[in-house]
Amino acid sequence: MFYHVKELQFNARVSKPDPRFASLLLEQFGGANGELKAALQYFAQAFPAKQPYPDKYDMLMDIATEEFSHLEIVGATIQMLLNGINGELKDAAEKSEIMQLMDGTSKKESLIHEALSNPQFLVLHGAGPAYKDSQGNPFSGTYINCNGDLSVDLRSNIAAESRAKIVYEYLLQFTDDPYVKETLTFLMTREVAHFQMFEAALATIQPNFPPGVMQADPRYSNTYFNMSNGESVRGPWNEGKTLD
Amino acid sequence: MFYHVKELQFNARVSKPDPRFASLLLEQFGGANGELKAALQYFAQAFPAKQPYPDKYDMLMDIATEEFSHLEIVGATIQMLLNGINGELKDAAEKSEIMQLMDGTSKKESLIHEALSNPQFLVLHGAGPAYKDSQGNPFSGTYINCNGDLSVDLRSNIAAESRAKIVYEYLLQFTDDPYVKETLTFLMTREVAHFQMFEAALATIQPNFPPGVMQADPRYSNTYFNMSNGESVRGPWNEGKTLD
Amino acid sequence: MFYHVKELQFNARVSKPDPRFASLLLEQFGGANGELKAALQYFAQAFPAKQPYPDKYDMLMDIATEEFSHLEIVGATIQMLLNGINGELKDAAEKSEIMQLMDGTSKKESLIHEALSNPQFLVLHGAGPAYKDSQGNPFSGTYINCNGDLSVDLRSNIAAESRAKIVYEYLLQFTDDPYVKETLTFLMTREVAHFQMFEAALATIQPNFPPGVMQADPRYSNTYFNMSNGESVRGPWNEGKTLD
Amino acid sequence: MFYHVKELQFNARVSKPDPRFASLLLEQFGGANGELKAALQYFAQAFPAKQPYPDKYDMLMDIATEEFSHLEIVGATIQMLLNGINGELKDAAEKSEIMQLMDGTSKKESLIHEALSNPQFLVLHGAGPAYKDSQGNPFSGTYINCNGDLSVDLRSNIAAESRAKIVYEYLLQFTDDPYVKETLTFLMTREVAHFQMFEAALATIQPNFPPGVMQADPRYSNTYFNMSNGESVRGPWNEGKTLD
Amino acid sequence: MFYHVKELQFNARVSKPDPRFASLLLEQFGGANGELKAALQYFAQAFPAKQPYPDKYDMLMDIATEEFSHLEIVGATIQMLLNGINGELKDAAEKSEIMQLMDGTSKKESLIHEALSNPQFLVLHGAGPAYKDSQGNPFSGTYINCNGDLSVDLRSNIAAESRAKIVYEYLLQFTDDPYVKETLTFLMTREVAHFQMFEAALATIQPNFPPGVMQADPRYSNTYFNMSNGESVRGPWNEGKTLD
Amino acid sequence: MFYHVKELQFNARVSKPDPRFASLLLEQFGGANGELKAALQYFAQAFPAKQPYPDKYDMLMDIATEEFSHLEIVGATIQMLLNGINGELKDAAEKSEIMQLMDGTSKKESLIHEALSNPQFLVLHGAGPAYKDSQGNPFSGTYINCNGDLSVDLRSNIAAESRAKIVYEYLLQFTDDPYVKETLTFLMTREVAHFQMFEAALATIQPNFPPGVMQADPRYSNTYFNMSNGESVRGPWNEGKTLD
Repeated sequence: MFYHVKELQFNARVSKPDPRFASLLLEQFGGANGELKAALQYFAQAFPAKQPYPDKYDMLMDIATEEFSHLEIVGATIQMLLNGINGELKDAAEKSEIMQLMDGTSKKESLIHEALSNPQFLVLHGAGPAYKDSQGNPFSGTYINCNGDLSVDLRSNIAAESRAKIVYEYLLQFTDDPYVKETLTFLMTREVAHFQMFEAALATIQPNFPPGVMQADPRYSNTYFNMSNGESVRGPWNEGKTLD
Repeated sequence: MFYHVKELQFNARVSKPDPRFASLLLEQFGGANGELKAALQYFAQAFPAKQPYPDKYDMLMDIATEEFSHLEIVGATIQMLLNGINGELKDAAEKSEIMQLMDGTSKKESLIHEALSNPQFLVLHGAGPAYKDSQGNPFSGTYINCNGDLSVDLRSNIAAESRAKIVYEYLLQFTDDPYVKETLTFLMTREVAHFQMFEAALATIQPNFPPGVMQADPRYSNTYFNMSNGESVRGPWNEGKTLD
Repeated sequence: MFYHVKELQFNARVSKPDPRFASLLLEQFGGANGELKAALQYFAQAFPAKQPYPDKYDMLMDIATEEFSHLEIVGATIQMLLNGINGELKDAAEKSEIMQLMDGTSKKESLIHEALSNPQFLVLHGAGPAYKDSQGNPFSGTYINCNGDLSVDLRSNIAAESRAKIVYEYLLQFTDDPYVKETLTFLMTREVAHFQMFEAALATIQPNFPPGVMQADPRYSNTYFNMSNGESVRGPWNEGKTLD
Repeated sequence: MFYHVKELQFNARVSKPDPRFASLLLEQFGGANGELKAALQYFAQAFPAKQPYPDKYDMLMDIATEEFSHLEIVGATIQMLLNGINGELKDAAEKSEIMQLMDGTSKKESLIHEALSNPQFLVLHGAGPAYKDSQGNPFSGTYINCNGDLSVDLRSNIAAESRAKIVYEYLLQFTDDPYVKETLTFLMTREVAHFQMFEAALATIQPNFPPGVMQADPRYSNTYFNMSNGESVRGPWNEGKTLD
Repeated sequence: MFYHVKELQFNARVSKPDPRFASLLLEQFGGANGELKAALQYFAQAFPAKQPYPDKYDMLMDIATEEFSHLEIVGATIQMLLNGINGELKDAAEKSEIMQLMDGTSKKESLIHEALSNPQFLVLHGAGPAYKDSQGNPFSGTYINCNGDLSVDLRSNIAAESRAKIVYEYLLQFTDDPYVKETLTFLMTREVAHFQMFEAALATIQPNFPPGVMQADPRYSNTYFNMSNGESVRGPWNEGKTLD
Repeated sequence: MFYHVKELQFNARVSKPDPRFASLLLEQFGGANGELKAALQYFAQAFPAKQPYPDKYDMLMDIATEEFSHLEIVGATIQMLLNGINGELKDAAEKSEIMQLMDGTSKKESLIHEALSNPQFLVLHGAGPAYKDSQGNPFSGTYINCNGDLSVDLRSNIAAESRAKIVYEYLLQFTDDPYVKETLTFLMTREVAHFQMFEAALATIQPNFPPGVMQADPRYSNTYFNMSNGESVRGPWNEGKTLD
């Protein structure tokens, strides 16, 4: 069972509305590597893990719950980045001034002018967060990996946290709002922390290689197939037996 | 912020494994009218509702949180309906007996025989819940309606609860496990309770018709267009002015 | 069987091409709450409704047919909003001037300059309507709710009309073309009229609560679960029995 | 504008309920090559075709309207194939006999027994048609090809009719109901007729090769690249200049 | 089995980075009528064609392989169009200058300024190609037509090449980079060449009309249904028997 | 550029047709963790990796090419598992015996009887492979992870190979055809080999933790948030600082 605590896990604030960045930040609300994906992935993995790994069940549920709390932080931040817009838009609508704003004939520097250049939020969701990514693609269950084997699922999670981390890294380049940067830094760091927890958990499952149960067939396992013409550059991955 | 309580909101149990019904029950885990859809819909609606309706924000967050708790009940039930399978399957795999089971040459009445007639769970998710509906379609953000206006969103919720209720009703026809029936009856009833709460909340927003802010144009609003040949059967919806 | 009448149901016109608004208006052609979704939803619901509700069958088919006619109005409007573009583009292509237009080095104020800033129409559909929403997402059957029970389906329709209405309301803020505004006002008003028809139809089905057939379990039906810390704001939805 | 005529374009009947075939027939209701796809494709193509091809506009709208009428035939047939089920199911539900039917302990040969072996219709749509294909995938706007150039669009239509024809051909192998076979034969034949109309229309556009406007570059156009080892079998497509 | 040759099939180059055009060019990397769709379509069709048409198998595999090689050309071109961006972005990030670039307060004419106006590449994929179309929709298996009958599949291919050709034609209007134009002209011309090969292959299958095996029913095959009021414009497609 | 070699990379054979297993095996042709997903993922990652990692580019292209070759093995195997069906079906169609086969009144043990119990292949694709998973979901670009940073992408690949390996492991439980088992064992083993190559490649990038470039914020990085009531089971992931 879940309980909701009325405070956010992190005291997220914004300096000023910024609808352009709100649109990018959707990536972490409803995107392929966002907080919803993470929360749902760990939540679903927890059920089959409970037997025989009750400790991993607890860990997966704790991290899933933290990710739901992060989803709330991201949603609240998007709302704050849009909120000023709502008021200005309502005022302008009452004065039938919206089209003038769009044409730039009044208040050209206004935030609303910027919002109107990307009006999808306003047309579709009336200025609130939505389960979409930064390009408007709806959230999809296909983003989620749960395969019912912890030696596989934990590796999926390590990769998922890596992707979530780099998306925050990319996003941080597109805002200079110090409050927003602080929130994103918190969230990005937590992805790194989760990465480390999943690695620690994987290390306690022995043996954990190869993933799953069945062993590899030694006839095919230690060979690098050179599938290209010419010589491939050498590295530790193809310095042994190579077949053309 | 969310907290997770280690007990389920309802003491869900099953009498025996039933992989066939587990597959149908996915409809309420990852389906278009399932618990995840409900939870996410109310959660996203809460952000723009907070101003100027802090009371509706609390209600939406409370019900969203209850729906996440229902999602957990459904997931735990699916896991229990599959769990016996896991053990039998592992035993059979060790003895290389799975194909014999499929061919019906041994233990024909076994649960595993039934599981194997619909092996998608096992092939894809190793016997655990997944964000799919009963036909295997992945969960989609398109299921979710949030339009940033409470007089619209609450009506979306009333309809959503109606659909969730009838899906439980349909599902109840496909199990005779008394424990599962009790759990589904609890969940179905809570949909009805939420329906009533959303109706009560809508009634406190005045005026709430038409939905949104703009008024209808009286020139076009009170007319029934008869778009078919012959006479349409009469009812209160087309007893006034009708245009051919 | 359907027949096509060569005139539109409403004399839709535009003052001038406006590719930016054409792109937004796609929301009502191929979007989640657009005319196609409405037409298809009522059309599919009509089949199972025919027995035992032949009057509702007629109503659903009439409104579905009107929605197909609205789809045609929206498509024709999008085409008119793009049409000037086609000609200008062809002229420019013949003179190899398109890139200059994009760079703003000639005819900077041209409509085509605006079209080129959002060239998806031209790249994908050669300047015509498409079954996409305003963000380019393809139309999806997941938008459509038909559950085979009229006490549910009519509530889905009331909510669907509410959403269609507010999307027209939002769209009206992004055009100042008086002809387009007149068309959108007609279409918006018809959604309100349909809303009222579905409510009138629902009222003739008695009893219609709870939706579906099965009754709620009184042990679980009249309780508000307070799923959050602190006190939730009170309203008519949680003034009775509340459980923490 | 559309009008609805209360009679079907073809007097579709069924000999007896057949939920298994109803499920397959969904392919032509909401599938990738079904009637809805065809109707919507020609309808959308008509708008940009109107100028400069008013004759093609009329043809596209006429065929689109016929395809909507075929969609109605398919939907009505699916409903008839399911209808007996509804009654039996309701009776059984009242007597709490459904699970017995599933277990085969009563009325083993009943139609409902067969329906229950594939209960998705009943769980999701209460025994009515839905915008899905025979595997349960929701209809998608991605099925539809409209590219705004008639020399391209008509070729898309010729291919679409070819695919629709073969799907009817495949479906005809899975029913021996003489009424259903008659209906499918009518629908299959109309696809062939449309195929011929689109070919005739394409022939009136001169030149129509290459599709579109731009000419091919002769340096690259008359060459067959042999992209495989060994010799490819020869045919008229690679008897000219071949490059390795 | 496939082999990779380290050279591109065409010596693709770019004059300068152009992130705006890179975004449009995605249409041919991961779009509905792009190179990936073509390659996968012919590849899948080849398997069932092998018996009884080994010559068509060779042709389909050769053209599929060429389309994979075109996919590589498109991907390499997108990478070149983005590459300068990567370096500038990294420099700016190190100097914390990105936001200034976005605000236009420094290096206003920079390529990166343009990239930042459409930052999805950078947020999602760190400046590399992705399996998306020019609007950000993910590649979908629904784009691909393979129906297991060559008289149908080859017609699907003729239409597919027509669409691919016109998309290149449209794209050519949005770049004035002579190197890019040369590459796109090569690729566009190859679509025309493939169109001709598929037509030649279809002609060797006799009879190939109607598509598939079953014959049309002469009662329904030579009739034009006039589904609209008034007279439809006449053409060779409706000059014979017409039914109202 | 790619070349196609007419031999398969592995001498795949089947003992007898098996349409049921062909349907499951689609999981590795068009499924979320199948060969197509792997091939496309590494292919797209190669472009941005080329600078500054030409060695990783070679490796990614070599493995992508091997995965395309595996896709061909899987497709050829599916075709062989279906091929007998084609012949029998054609014979039966000529004798109008298909429905009798379905009803079990003749040749009850026939392979075609089994095929007919799951006729989607035949209805949709005429007995050939398709870009779908074992439940009929179309292949989706959302399965593919490429984020433009090798320290992230290689981790995505390690996880992807883990998932591909376990799906082969699951599939091996559903066939007892020794030839098919041999092929699947080869393919499964190659996933393990690729897993090891990606790990070796990641180890040569130093530092590779945290993924990406930015450092974690030490204030938030070494803390386990206990998001649940009661005590979570302890493990190396939460033995340090824990916050309630």
